[in-house]
Amino acid sequence: MNNPTLKLRRVAIDTYHENVAYLHRECAVYRAEGFQALSKILISANGQRILAVLNVVDDAAIVTPTELGLSEQAYEQLNAHADCVIKVDHAEPAVSMDAVRRKIDGERLTLDDFEAITRDIAESRYSKMEMAAFLVATGQNSLDRDEVYYLTRAMLDTGQRLNWGELLVVDKHCIGGIPGNRTSMLVVPIVAAHGMLIPKTSSRAITSPAGTADTMETLAEVNLSPGKLHDIVRKHRGCLAWGGTAKLAPVDDMLIAVERPLGIDSRGQMVASILSKKLAAGSTHLLIDIPVGPTAKVRHMRAALALRKLFEFVGDQLEIHLEVIITDGRQPIGRGIGPTLEARDVMQVLENDPNAPADLRQKSLALAGRILEFDPDVRGGQGYAIARDILDSGRALAKMNAIIEGQGARAVDFTPGQFCHEVRAGRSGVVTGIDNLQMAKIARIAGAPMDKKAGVDLMRKTGDAVAEGDVLYRVYAEFMSDFEFVRKLIEQNNGYTIGEKVDIKRYDAFI
Amino acid sequence: MNNPTLKLRRVAIDTYHENVAYLHRECAVYRAEGFQALSKILISANGQRILAVLNVVDDAAIVTPTELGLSEQAYEQLNAHADCVIKVDHAEPAVSMDAVRRKIDGERLTLDDFEAITRDIAESRYSKMEMAAFLVATGQNSLDRDEVYYLTRAMLDTGQRLNWGELLVVDKHCIGGIPGNRTSMLVVPIVAAHGMLIPKTSSRAITSPAGTADTMETLAEVNLSPGKLHDIVRKHRGCLAWGGTAKLAPVDDMLIAVERPLGIDSRGQMVASILSKKLAAGSTHLLIDIPVGPTAKVRHMRAALALRKLFEFVGDQLEIHLEVIITDGRQPIGRGIGPTLEARDVMQVLENDPNAPADLRQKSLALAGRILEFDPDVRGGQGYAIARDILDSGRALAKMNAIIEGQGARAVDFTPGQFCHEVRAGRSGVVTGIDNLQMAKIARIAGAPMDKKAGVDLMRKTGDAVAEGDVLYRVYAEFMSDFEFVRKLIEQNNGYTIGEKVDIKRYDAFI
Repeated sequence: MNNPTLKLRRVAIDTYHENVAYLHRECAVYRAEGFQALSKILISANGQRILAVLNVVDDAAIVTPTELGLSEQAYEQLNAHADCVIKVDHAEPAVSMDAVRRKIDGERLTLDDFEAITRDIAESRYSKMEMAAFLVATGQNSLDRDEVYYLTRAMLDTGQRLNWGELLVVDKHCIGGIPGNRTSMLVVPIVAAHGMLIPKTSSRAITSPAGTADTMETLAEVNLSPGKLHDIVRKHRGCLAWGGTAKLAPVDDMLIAVERPLGIDSRGQMVASILSKKLAAGSTHLLIDIPVGPTAKVRHMRAALALRKLFEFVGDQLEIHLEVIITDGRQPIGRGIGPTLEARDVMQVLENDPNAPADLRQKSLALAGRILEFDPDVRGGQGYAIARDILDSGRALAKMNAIIEGQGARAVDFTPGQFCHEVRAGRSGVVTGIDNLQMAKIARIAGAPMDKKAGVDLMRKTGDAVAEGDVLYRVYAEFMSDFEFVRKLIEQNNGYTIGEKVDIKRYDAFI
Repeated sequence: MNNPTLKLRRVAIDTYHENVAYLHRECAVYRAEGFQALSKILISANGQRILAVLNVVDDAAIVTPTELGLSEQAYEQLNAHADCVIKVDHAEPAVSMDAVRRKIDGERLTLDDFEAITRDIAESRYSKMEMAAFLVATGQNSLDRDEVYYLTRAMLDTGQRLNWGELLVVDKHCIGGIPGNRTSMLVVPIVAAHGMLIPKTSSRAITSPAGTADTMETLAEVNLSPGKLHDIVRKHRGCLAWGGTAKLAPVDDMLIAVERPLGIDSRGQMVASILSKKLAAGSTHLLIDIPVGPTAKVRHMRAALALRKLFEFVGDQLEIHLEVIITDGRQPIGRGIGPTLEARDVMQVLENDPNAPADLRQKSLALAGRILEFDPDVRGGQGYAIARDILDSGRALAKMNAIIEGQGARAVDFTPGQFCHEVRAGRSGVVTGIDNLQMAKIARIAGAPMDKKAGVDLMRKTGDAVAEGDVLYRVYAEFMSDFEFVRKLIEQNNGYTIGEKVDIKRYDAFI
């Protein structure tokens, strides 16, 4: 119905990935239409249409009976002004939910089904509940490899796709789960210094203590307009930007916002998520890093191999040159966990600081070397040596500084958070294990990634001998409340196991 | 952390079945704790603890940086006052989500698992997304019959349980899906007039055009305090009240609020939902009505029989005397669809009005007859005749009037909505089918159940001969916007099929 008297109002509430509309209980439209709280409504104005969950308001200070309130996200999406003629309707349930229900029944879905589902998700036709239903229905191993391909293609088709106009556009991606492990910030300057195009966009942390975008942000701006990002990539052959501004595979972002809090693991969704994002970003050649370890996302080599095959199958269907590297994921990589501490590690490696964490350097060189071998002019097996030359010569550092300048440098300050707690060995022996999940949790509760300077600094790694009372790691927090909370957490489980001896494979050999 | 400066504030927003907390973006607690929008927080005050989803506010008119805002439901649940010392913490994810993830993996869950899940749901530890994950994981036929029993018992154990102190407490329940079909409002007065205890509580419509509580509400108060409900039942041997005030199987209500919008059908959840509610209400003997038809919830006799076995198995485990009746669900029962029109039908039957819908009378007598036979003094096969005597003699009407008086009579007004649209036959022939789903949708879009007088009044039923231009049914609406919307809907599909002849079984024979 047309409601010329209903005025649009921006309600300054951040409802994250869900559009919320606010109608006063006495609003004529609300009463007339028989809307219910939590039912979904369709709002049209100015040629735009959005869907929103309805909240009913009893306070005219929030919205009056003649106003339609929209949460910040919804208001921006609708992109209308207060005096637009607004139309409010019952939202029909998304038709593609029929396909989701068929999937729940155990049916195999077609490309058309996946296209319909991703289109409806992109248009905000799915509630969080419906997205959760889709994720559970397609979770675990309920998608066969053709369906994973269909889902990937459908997610790719719902967003923009960049075209860099070059034959070789490289990227790397780690499936995640290993604290520290900030290899992208080393791989990008090395590969770009070689002259290959590596327009790297990264995510912010959702459940981890830092994403590459969070860590890079301590050194430079990462929130770049598409135009500026393009200029930087053209000029420097690489960038380290936040991927949220480009509208690449937007359905992926929406699903991730539901999937992560649910803690559902699904190989199929992981593959579709990664590949749709990378293809949308215009990559032609992609290196995937799958860390394996008892507290990593992938816990056994056979699972890593199955995942590799799935990546390869879908990558081949979508005509991206894809290689998978299986790495040691038995403990964090580097020393720092949390944006500032990780950025310090990265810069130490780039500066060839003798104190730089060797594992981070080695792993980054191995990954960069594999990417360099995508270059037809690089002889097979020579990538690692070239990468090492670029790093040792300072060319990688120079490239990183150029990228930082290009994106907009920030004042460098590696001082960690003001509150420091030292965690010490309760006995003498050898560090036999460091729990990735627990260390990530400790850094997160300490305040990372929101408090950039919060996190964990590891003094001992697996295989190191320790005497009773030696510092295993330091925890930094910015706020006393977090500090007290994290100390309690560490009392329960400090993440380290100390034993008599450990037979750890060397990283070089493993990689 | 303790925040003596954080004041509690009731934010007058109705967020339905989800607790929402509002913190200002500049609030010291929000900044310090590193909360994220949509993350779940634990709020403690005055010895009470609640969980809530966090929304971040940028407008001090809604909450100031020194306030913690709570949506209406959350505020009531916390039951604290503005000056309480409030504690805000990160909410740990519900531990029982591990069991949900195991179910997603295809594992069989134990009674302990189900108890942990329902306890967490009852304590608001599950987000809507997590409930959706649980529903999908346990949906379709993924629960075996033992698991359905465990789920029923777990749902029963999370709420209060009434004890009427009598050996015979009867109830009936229809699995739903058939518009009209207001048999409870006839069965209760007949059975109560016989002297059996039938304390009937009903739900309001969620996705249908009317629940028994919505229809009864046109005649009497249905929102009764537990004390008043008890008094009425003691005095009149029966009632027709809304079940929402008693805290019976509260997890069932919470799951239904997620399940219905998702449109997920699950035999296991349906059985657990119905039986947990009835057992919590103190029933000892229960009659379940399963309508079967091409547009009913159960579409084939073999599915109805399988569902009957499942009801019987779980009922026996929980020691309730349970009988299942399979009825004709091929079209709506009675003439009216929508609260006022259905109430009119019911009163016509009670008043032995010659125009009363025969199918509603017949079905109600059949159901009442079966319930009367729960009485050890009633000879097998005599229930129907006794029920008919009670109805024909006016004793059922007298009982209904006494119950209406007891609950609080409302002024009777069966005038339907002000806007009326007549739907006419496009050809001559015989009505060969009436689509339950489409008729329910038409009544709902017309405004039912929120607008009591909105709905559909059927002039022709399956098997009736029609001439071109005859009125098939009338649609009533209270508001012009609904009226226009429903007319468009009817143009697409008016729900009737007209053909040459139909070979419909007589209801008596079918039941």
